[in-house]
Amino acid sequence: MGSLPSPHDPSNAFNPMDVAELSIESRLVMDFITQYYQTLETRPVQPRVKPGFLTGQLPEKAPFHAESMEEILSDVSEKIVPGLTHWQSPNFHAYFPASSSNAGLLGEMLCSGLSVIGFTWNSSPAATELENVVVDWLADMLNLPPSFRFSGGGGGGGVLQSNTCEAVLCTLAAARDKVLERIGDDKINKLVAYCSDQTHFTLHKGAKLIGIRRANIKSIGTRRENGFGLCPNDLRNAITGDLEAGLVPFYLCGTIGTTALGAVDPIKELGKVAREFDLWFHIDAAYGGSACICPEFRHYLDGVELVDSISMNAHKWLLSNLDCCFLWLQNPKCLIQCLAAEAEFLKGSGEMVDYKDWQISLSRRFRAIKMWMVFRRYGVSNLMEHIRSDVSMAARFEEMVSADDRFEIVFPRKFALVCFKLNTKGSVQHGEDDGEDGLDGDSVLTRELMGRVNSSGKAYLSGVEMGRIFFIRCVIGSSLTEERHVDNLWNLIQEKTQSIMPCRA
Amino acid sequence: MGSLPSPHDPSNAFNPMDVAELSIESRLVMDFITQYYQTLETRPVQPRVKPGFLTGQLPEKAPFHAESMEEILSDVSEKIVPGLTHWQSPNFHAYFPASSSNAGLLGEMLCSGLSVIGFTWNSSPAATELENVVVDWLADMLNLPPSFRFSGGGGGGGVLQSNTCEAVLCTLAAARDKVLERIGDDKINKLVAYCSDQTHFTLHKGAKLIGIRRANIKSIGTRRENGFGLCPNDLRNAITGDLEAGLVPFYLCGTIGTTALGAVDPIKELGKVAREFDLWFHIDAAYGGSACICPEFRHYLDGVELVDSISMNAHKWLLSNLDCCFLWLQNPKCLIQCLAAEAEFLKGSGEMVDYKDWQISLSRRFRAIKMWMVFRRYGVSNLMEHIRSDVSMAARFEEMVSADDRFEIVFPRKFALVCFKLNTKGSVQHGEDDGEDGLDGDSVLTRELMGRVNSSGKAYLSGVEMGRIFFIRCVIGSSLTEERHVDNLWNLIQEKTQSIMPCRA
Repeated sequence: MGSLPSPHDPSNAFNPMDVAELSIESRLVMDFITQYYQTLETRPVQPRVKPGFLTGQLPEKAPFHAESMEEILSDVSEKIVPGLTHWQSPNFHAYFPASSSNAGLLGEMLCSGLSVIGFTWNSSPAATELENVVVDWLADMLNLPPSFRFSGGGGGGGVLQSNTCEAVLCTLAAARDKVLERIGDDKINKLVAYCSDQTHFTLHKGAKLIGIRRANIKSIGTRRENGFGLCPNDLRNAITGDLEAGLVPFYLCGTIGTTALGAVDPIKELGKVAREFDLWFHIDAAYGGSACICPEFRHYLDGVELVDSISMNAHKWLLSNLDCCFLWLQNPKCLIQCLAAEAEFLKGSGEMVDYKDWQISLSRRFRAIKMWMVFRRYGVSNLMEHIRSDVSMAARFEEMVSADDRFEIVFPRKFALVCFKLNTKGSVQHGEDDGEDGLDGDSVLTRELMGRVNSSGKAYLSGVEMGRIFFIRCVIGSSLTEERHVDNLWNLIQEKTQSIMPCRA
Repeated sequence: MGSLPSPHDPSNAFNPMDVAELSIESRLVMDFITQYYQTLETRPVQPRVKPGFLTGQLPEKAPFHAESMEEILSDVSEKIVPGLTHWQSPNFHAYFPASSSNAGLLGEMLCSGLSVIGFTWNSSPAATELENVVVDWLADMLNLPPSFRFSGGGGGGGVLQSNTCEAVLCTLAAARDKVLERIGDDKINKLVAYCSDQTHFTLHKGAKLIGIRRANIKSIGTRRENGFGLCPNDLRNAITGDLEAGLVPFYLCGTIGTTALGAVDPIKELGKVAREFDLWFHIDAAYGGSACICPEFRHYLDGVELVDSISMNAHKWLLSNLDCCFLWLQNPKCLIQCLAAEAEFLKGSGEMVDYKDWQISLSRRFRAIKMWMVFRRYGVSNLMEHIRSDVSMAARFEEMVSADDRFEIVFPRKFALVCFKLNTKGSVQHGEDDGEDGLDGDSVLTRELMGRVNSSGKAYLSGVEMGRIFFIRCVIGSSLTEERHVDNLWNLIQEKTQSIMPCRA
């Protein structure tokens, strides 16, 4: 039990930071993690468990006395791991990745080991300054204009938040306060926020949270001929209509890499509309932003100089383990004015950044040291290699799907997300018949196919319903995925397709 | 360079989760952390650095090629650590602690190593169920009524969020939507939230974020004779006044362990008022809540059955490393109705908890495994011992301060926070003269004393200005603090007091 005291032994006080014990137990935990990584490939990606499977196995009360690390890890292995969906499995393709890496994990360890809270510059100066540095580093990698950076004195800068919803919520609130200051704080019911029907629900949730009426959160429909991007003319029409109705347009959210399809909104054209009507323009580049460190993807950011703020989840595709969302602003003063909170015991330095005024909460984790670890340990070259390798595997998968005439690609791939469905036109039994739920017949089959692939445990895909269509999303993004996993996935899909379309065998 | 590839070497692909490399590098990082813990005592608690000290030392761009872990850790040692405020130092007494422990750190490692995202039950069943279990465990340790727990079918339950501001923001939004559903969503400008002048600014920030007008966030003054707790009669008077003015009271925040003084609001009496006027009553027990696992502190929670929601930061005093805030609700449905967001690719199970609907964001860290590690590795007995040991050291410190007639205790200690100032009544040169800033003379001296203690690097205290008074806050809470550190602190304070009051030598 190391330094954990026996009851009534005053000579041996409880020391929760005993270093000898930490050395021993950290090896146990790290051995557990490396074994987990090594067995990930063979585990069913999704567990076959029923609701209540775990709560039924665990005691109703916390233990009164300490237990050993061996006992705990044994329970993790036997009770918890079998009930996890293995997001780090090389066969996990259901969602945009939560991309882990050694540097990300080790950076998290440093974050937790140092355990400082840089809510003001003064409360831990190096934590704040390192954050200033890493947000500038990634701004440089993305070739964001100098006006988004601390260095160079352009007046901009960035912050590391927990996730996109925080970034969206904070920028919405800043935009709201900016406009209410002009028109009066009794006019909140008149404010209108815009997005497309492909925008992540985070925008709706954030807008509702800051008090925008549901009817005033406007999802503008997108069309295939625009690549499911938000059409600037449609936006302009919506804005002018709302202005005529006496409403106050105040916020626009564009997306680089939408959830369902990986679509990209036309930033430059939308930016012009936003400027024309004085809207706060935020870009949610949660997934697609990471790819823009590669020159061949950077064009998606063209027009970013017209944007007020842009956010990107490094924990999605930049090997940074949960959690870390970058948010950059050209004019952070609006954000600070909205989020600043003064208290005597927290008086800031005045000269430097006090990050408590750049986020929702007061306390904050030292995420900057993780990002610094990731950027240095891998270098820009390997991060680009990581993105390109995933994109190249996704392109190969897309080619295999396209080459099989039983399938169609629903939307041309932009990043490493492939959207496809069965297309059995000409097949007697399915054709264009309607299936259940109003889905077309191929969509019903596609859903069945996805179910069979997923229940095999050998891969995990997700699906989306859009109108009468259901299609499969396959994201290549796990840090462990290699070409052979993609080949196996395609074989598995072909096998399961046979099983639901035997007449074509 | 382990598995990091050389350029143009196709045989050696970039593998960011290479286990051999992880084994080696994790030892380097863990050795770094244990060495850091061992040297914490001797480091100046606050760094002596000037704004820009770190940004000036680091390159403007991220490296293009990978660097070695040794290089990175060497820079952490030489450039970053000297610029940190050492929150884990045994001599850190400035803020409520960010209490680290081995189990907390190892739990964070597991969280990061498994790296699953349980936004729905389905997206990682064991993550959700383990969270159900640990929130029930702590509810049991705190002896919360069954109506706050999942087990037993009382309809309540809890969630692990990042921090108190998230808990306050989410409950504010749920309370707002509940009342707007009744009175119409064009009435947001009429809503009034109440707190005391001792409530953490988080309530103000949260209320502003959800769209409550600043004038409608009412801080009710507290008085010494009420122990700086919110007086139920004052609250009732404020509410009835606002009702007469046509406003709509909707939310009340009480506190167990206020930031400045560690004061406690009278939960039961406030709860009756909240029930009478149908206000959502939230308890912010961020700091003081942890102590309530010890029976001798549990009485502060008396009346909790009248509360809608209660939050508590385990990362403050329950050895759980940043971040982890527990939030329990008697009727989570209101919260879920406010925060739920539907999307085809996230369809929930219906039967089980989908935690995306209990928090701001979609993605979330697997904090439950950290809490499970902490609860099991230490057991309730050691967690109680940890609280009691800090409280007992704080009581001893308070006694030493009280016994010195140059000092006064500003407010009787309730937990492990001691508030004190110099009291030189009768001393010729200071007496009751006003000093700078309108502070009384003793307060000016007290601030000077704090400055000298802090600039010694041997301890770190904080201070608060209330009216004409400035006093020092000394929190005993670092996991490494032992009695000898408290003795050294008192010696240091006496020495510095001598230096500013030589005539009393």
